[in-house]
Amino acid sequence: MSGITAHYQLYGKSGSFEKKAEDIALGLTIGSWTDLALLEQEQLKKHKGNVISVTELKDIQHPFHPEIIKGEIKIFYPAANFSTDIPAILTTVFGKLSLDGEVKLLDLEFDTNLLSHFPGPRFGIKGVREKLGVYERPLIMSIFKGVIGRDIEYLAEQLKQQAYGGVDLVKDDEILFDNPLTSFESRITAGREVLRQVYEETGHRTLYAVNLSGRTFELKDKAKKARELGADALLFNVHTYGLDALQMLAEDDEIQLPLMAHPAYSGAFTSSAYYGVSTSLVLGKLTRYAGADFSLFPSPYGSVALERSIALSLGEELTKISTVKQSFPVPSAGIHPGLVPLLMNDYGIDSIINAGGGIHGHPAGATGGGLAFRQAVTAVLEEIPLVQAAKQHSELKTALELWGL
Amino acid sequence: MSGITAHYQLYGKSGSFEKKAEDIALGLTIGSWTDLALLEQEQLKKHKGNVISVTELKDIQHPFHPEIIKGEIKIFYPAANFSTDIPAILTTVFGKLSLDGEVKLLDLEFDTNLLSHFPGPRFGIKGVREKLGVYERPLIMSIFKGVIGRDIEYLAEQLKQQAYGGVDLVKDDEILFDNPLTSFESRITAGREVLRQVYEETGHRTLYAVNLSGRTFELKDKAKKARELGADALLFNVHTYGLDALQMLAEDDEIQLPLMAHPAYSGAFTSSAYYGVSTSLVLGKLTRYAGADFSLFPSPYGSVALERSIALSLGEELTKISTVKQSFPVPSAGIHPGLVPLLMNDYGIDSIINAGGGIHGHPAGATGGGLAFRQAVTAVLEEIPLVQAAKQHSELKTALELWGL
Ligand SMILES: [Mg+2]
Ligand SMILES: [Mg+2]
Repeated sequence: MSGITAHYQLYGKSGSFEKKAEDIALGLTIGSWTDLALLEQEQLKKHKGNVISVTELKDIQHPFHPEIIKGEIKIFYPAANFSTDIPAILTTVFGKLSLDGEVKLLDLEFDTNLLSHFPGPRFGIKGVREKLGVYERPLIMSIFKGVIGRDIEYLAEQLKQQAYGGVDLVKDDEILFDNPLTSFESRITAGREVLRQVYEETGHRTLYAVNLSGRTFELKDKAKKARELGADALLFNVHTYGLDALQMLAEDDEIQLPLMAHPAYSGAFTSSAYYGVSTSLVLGKLTRYAGADFSLFPSPYGSVALERSIALSLGEELTKISTVKQSFPVPSAGIHPGLVPLLMNDYGIDSIINAGGGIHGHPAGATGGGLAFRQAVTAVLEEIPLVQAAKQHSELKTALELWGL
Repeated sequence: MSGITAHYQLYGKSGSFEKKAEDIALGLTIGSWTDLALLEQEQLKKHKGNVISVTELKDIQHPFHPEIIKGEIKIFYPAANFSTDIPAILTTVFGKLSLDGEVKLLDLEFDTNLLSHFPGPRFGIKGVREKLGVYERPLIMSIFKGVIGRDIEYLAEQLKQQAYGGVDLVKDDEILFDNPLTSFESRITAGREVLRQVYEETGHRTLYAVNLSGRTFELKDKAKKARELGADALLFNVHTYGLDALQMLAEDDEIQLPLMAHPAYSGAFTSSAYYGVSTSLVLGKLTRYAGADFSLFPSPYGSVALERSIALSLGEELTKISTVKQSFPVPSAGIHPGLVPLLMNDYGIDSIINAGGGIHGHPAGATGGGLAFRQAVTAVLEEIPLVQAAKQHSELKTALELWGL
């Protein structure tokens, strides 16, 4: 029987979890069981939620209520109960339940049949690398900075400086929306022209991810327009729209642009240890299944940081073997060239090194910042310590002096 | 200058909130200020976020870190920075910030100009009352129960029993999606026929809210189809799609059906006292602004319950004077006829009394359950104590015996 298995964390008295799990499994499916006639049981059996496992973590007391402990339960929901879309799945496994006290959705296991309805990234890590012609190293990305209220010439110049530094990708600031100074269309057109010039001059190709924003039902048309205008990729604040909107963009054959999922707003439902949904499920598995070619998330290194174990499991979710393609992990915030060895150790070469301040704050400007990152990556690949590489490379040297190792 | 003011709750050391507020106001708008040239300051002034107020709640220590206390800050964001849609607003005021530790978004104040972009409910309380011809009492709603795996005849019979009891509205179970046994279309068609029969027989009109589900970009067409088929109203699991999807349904002149917003999944981002968004903002103000004619939320009386003060402020948000129409508050779960005096005291007549078990669990069936609620409402309006009214009304008597007062 096809279906989905949800893992939950909850709190309760020792011995109470079995009943709670049964209540959830029935309450979120057929409602009741023991009071049904045998014939009805026969009819409804294939719709019944089933408790797969119940685990009491007897050592982990609730911080405010020492008489209750943590538990983890797994419940299987038959696919016959929901349409094969993320809203229906989330409503089934965590709709009413999200309102029922301290319960957190940790993971969802899609079986093969169910997963076949989720095509995942159109390009994935491999497809993005083919667009860039870069295979044997992590990609470098930088972010526009301080662009609200600026005109298109300002953005174009900032983009050029970033591209000159050899970054592979530049993304819009996620808080830059359609606006009279720098409209969606003008950013695409101006960005394309700048990057064409830099490519002709230097032979280096940089892709620009423009922020796809606005009303939900206009997103597809805007994305198609972006493609027509020659956009390279789309940045998308998926969590203010829902994961299904991302999936529709990924599936549309007339769009066919790499999609970069931004984690904006996701902290609202991932941050609590007691409520909501796990970070690795939201920003990892579901973002990948819904079709993001890139998933941004707070790196474990900066001031806005994820716990290290969470940030690593997230990277794992985005890249582990599956029938859907891999998404690029993009650990973000607090990244400077001195962190490159750690980043490459933590996330391997199939990841994005993404920096804002670590690019723009370089004393030699964004170009110097980009160069410093490229120099750091090359050093790590050649197994040369950064301090040694810095002797040959002034940009890296300056960066290490400023931000340390 | 038009814009939006966000209220946040956060934790920090006494004396630290002013700087934190300034950092947020700049970080979520123009990025920096003091290091800008005067000419640039002049240019960017109208895009700068401004701290409106900083309040330290010195008596409220963090439960795990007694050295830090609770604070509330208010920040104004110029409307020039975002497009006038909820995704852009949420990304601006709580995008990156939602990932930045213990910070909760408590409220958003839209100014008149900004609010004019949000038309709110198409019908509102007044328009829904006009559809029903019921003005001087709360409406009664009941919910389909245990309908997964059942066929259309089963649903039709359950709907008929509910309508016979005199309920004004019946809503689908939010976990009933499009399925081969009871497709969206067949539920509308069968439901319409049943309710027409009951109306012809009894003169009582009941509206049926069918669950609008499926892929995001198909919702509008499905809603239009529903209207063509004669649907009365749409139930919508808005929080798995995003509030903007609700707004697009509300705004579409070809749909024109009352919209019932279900709170499924909203607990994921409203439940924590430290993270996420306040219940009254999500299920109250924003659900109203986005155009829901009804907003369901956990009542303060049941086992899946909201804190009383939160549940009341939510009702207030849905109904207080505004340029947008009022939405019906629908406190749900744990409702039985004995609670009607309390419900009417808490929410007044402009609310919905919504019951599942309190209708279907009545010993005289759903019809008896509906009658008991209607009898209770009449008694309260006539200022007759329920126990006294129960002497004349066997259904109410049975209900009070079973569930108490
Ligand atoms: Mg940013
Ligand atoms: Mg239900």
